[in-house]
Amino acid sequence: MNLAIPKGFLFSTTEASIKKPGRPDLALIYSDTACVISGMFTTNRIKAAPVKHNIKKIKKGLAQAIVVNSGNANACTGKQGLKDVAEIVKMVGNLLKLDPELIYVCSTGVIGIPLPMDRIRQRIPILVKDLGSSTIEDVAKAIMTTDTFPKIVTKQIRISEKAIKIAGICKGAGMIHPKMATMLCFIMTDADIEKVALDTSLRTAVAQSFNRITVDGDMSTNDTVLAMANGRSESSKIELFSEDFRVFTSALREVTYELSKLIIEDGEGAKKLIKVEVLNASTERDAEKIAFSIANSMLVKTALYGNDANWGRIMAAIGYSGGKIREHKIDIYLNGLKIVEKGIGTGRDLEANEALKNREIFLKVDLNIGSASTKVLTCDLSEDYIKINAEYRS
Amino acid sequence: MNLAIPKGFLFSTTEASIKKPGRPDLALIYSDTACVISGMFTTNRIKAAPVKHNIKKIKKGLAQAIVVNSGNANACTGKQGLKDVAEIVKMVGNLLKLDPELIYVCSTGVIGIPLPMDRIRQRIPILVKDLGSSTIEDVAKAIMTTDTFPKIVTKQIRISEKAIKIAGICKGAGMIHPKMATMLCFIMTDADIEKVALDTSLRTAVAQSFNRITVDGDMSTNDTVLAMANGRSESSKIELFSEDFRVFTSALREVTYELSKLIIEDGEGAKKLIKVEVLNASTERDAEKIAFSIANSMLVKTALYGNDANWGRIMAAIGYSGGKIREHKIDIYLNGLKIVEKGIGTGRDLEANEALKNREIFLKVDLNIGSASTKVLTCDLSEDYIKINAEYRS
Repeated sequence: MNLAIPKGFLFSTTEASIKKPGRPDLALIYSDTACVISGMFTTNRIKAAPVKHNIKKIKKGLAQAIVVNSGNANACTGKQGLKDVAEIVKMVGNLLKLDPELIYVCSTGVIGIPLPMDRIRQRIPILVKDLGSSTIEDVAKAIMTTDTFPKIVTKQIRISEKAIKIAGICKGAGMIHPKMATMLCFIMTDADIEKVALDTSLRTAVAQSFNRITVDGDMSTNDTVLAMANGRSESSKIELFSEDFRVFTSALREVTYELSKLIIEDGEGAKKLIKVEVLNASTERDAEKIAFSIANSMLVKTALYGNDANWGRIMAAIGYSGGKIREHKIDIYLNGLKIVEKGIGTGRDLEANEALKNREIFLKVDLNIGSASTKVLTCDLSEDYIKINAEYRS
Repeated sequence: MNLAIPKGFLFSTTEASIKKPGRPDLALIYSDTACVISGMFTTNRIKAAPVKHNIKKIKKGLAQAIVVNSGNANACTGKQGLKDVAEIVKMVGNLLKLDPELIYVCSTGVIGIPLPMDRIRQRIPILVKDLGSSTIEDVAKAIMTTDTFPKIVTKQIRISEKAIKIAGICKGAGMIHPKMATMLCFIMTDADIEKVALDTSLRTAVAQSFNRITVDGDMSTNDTVLAMANGRSESSKIELFSEDFRVFTSALREVTYELSKLIIEDGEGAKKLIKVEVLNASTERDAEKIAFSIANSMLVKTALYGNDANWGRIMAAIGYSGGKIREHKIDIYLNGLKIVEKGIGTGRDLEANEALKNREIFLKVDLNIGSASTKVLTCDLSEDYIKINAEYRS
């Protein structure tokens, strides 16, 4: 992979046997220069301790290091959870000689078990000492839980004659649902950008990527997207709503969109990538309701898994979505094949069953009553989802 | 089974090979006396042709026959679907010498394929001729789709010294979600009851039974509950809000509750019956949001299937439900065992895993912030759900 790694970022990973031994599960992302940082967090009312911690800090908008662990979410761990985050911040701050305000902590994994602080305490000095010895891919691997592959997207753009690099890594394969970032995601860039511009850019990018995907409709307690910009490219400063801002936001959106696609491709047990597009709805809100109703329908997802163009289930999901529709105006297409016209089957189900054998499914619903539209990404639902999740802890 | 069959009801069933040959799939329920009828129907905006037909009629509130088929939902079939319903009504009316206004039609099965009217036309005369030759159990069997057993509940009560019988049958194992009756259900009684009293009684009973269950969160296009009362018990007339009304409603609620429990026990691929109770919420609406959020969580359902007391997933589902909570006040019990206290695990997960090996799971969430409560029934999620639904049409 030819990765565009932004200047000034260093990485390290180590094995703290957080859930079980055998793989690196603790990582450090460090910038040699203080960064502007923006963040978006789960809207779940139950938030993990590190999420609570980060939310408190994010307004100040400065950061230089992120400590991440997989294997344990540090959620539903009460005061102990918050104390553990504070201790990690303090240790890393001392070792890096950084203001603790510049250090963020993220966790992902099983909920409800306190962090194994004895082992984490032991490994943190090694993590700091080894800074620079790991690659961004090592970090992407260390933050995996049920993911089957590391997720990295990088992009290079030019702003004021300077090359700017944006790198994003993320993890997340289950408990994926919108209403905010839907997993852990870390964006690093050497752009020089105002805090308010980075905030807006990130919000725009997330709205059109991570908030448009769903695996199982379950929303996690730990979802976090953090974007750090250290200015090391020496480009001119990107200001809100400038032309540079537009270019940067567009690139950031591509990075987050590609990452969100990787998450769906790696959806737990997923065999197919499904794009659901709803066209010509009365309002954007209606289009979203209908698209997510289809994308979250277990009956639709199992039918697509079984290569069965069972469009009746799609119609049912449209009908109970709460979005405004007229049954006799609905057209549905599966991979370009019109299977429903004016609310009635076109009799091309056998052809459509064949078309479903593709790994990528494009399901288009034309409501023909307005002009609003939306797109959502999801995956099918196979026996493997059940296997993975019935056995996740054991 | 010792069934209390209400006086004056006759049944017949026949095989019309609607989806495939090999089993009775067309049934007739007939009362020798005109009945008061009440009905509740799916709130899905896409309604099957027979549902549209029945909704038009139900206000008049009189009935004497119901024709039901399984194997085909007659949904998303456009004008042809409505014409087919009208033809069935006309044929049965002619043969039974009944006003067509007294005849209702229900369908369940695959969506989007026109009814095989040639075969249905052929079998209707036989259905009418054979009236009285089938039992209520035969009808309960004929309306099954993916159900693995017929669902019948009967009950006898006394009103004004007369024995009154209530019999209910239903089908439904997938596409089960509340917001109205959640399958096909037919209630027959020989009570003499005012239309308005039967309406109210049925609404109350359904609110506390069928609207409190969920299998997969998918709401069907065909959900229907019809209750017919023919007065043949010669009891005095049951009037709204009388003592007799109270007794009747309580019995009807027991019948519908028992039926809804049978549906969950037969949930597609279900291995366990799960009762979710939410206590001490701020409002009843909050309690419902939280209970259904847990009951519909694929991650909770797969964990319970895997005998894994993974309460973190329950906490996450509580958190994203939208209901008001205070994390540090939440207690959770699994089959009486306190696994979460004040938002934190009690460390009794191994004991709880053992307790989960029961076929019946009682999951109690005490929010400790108000006084509203609710109960919901659901089932776990196993590989068999996927198998059944990936292969349903083929």
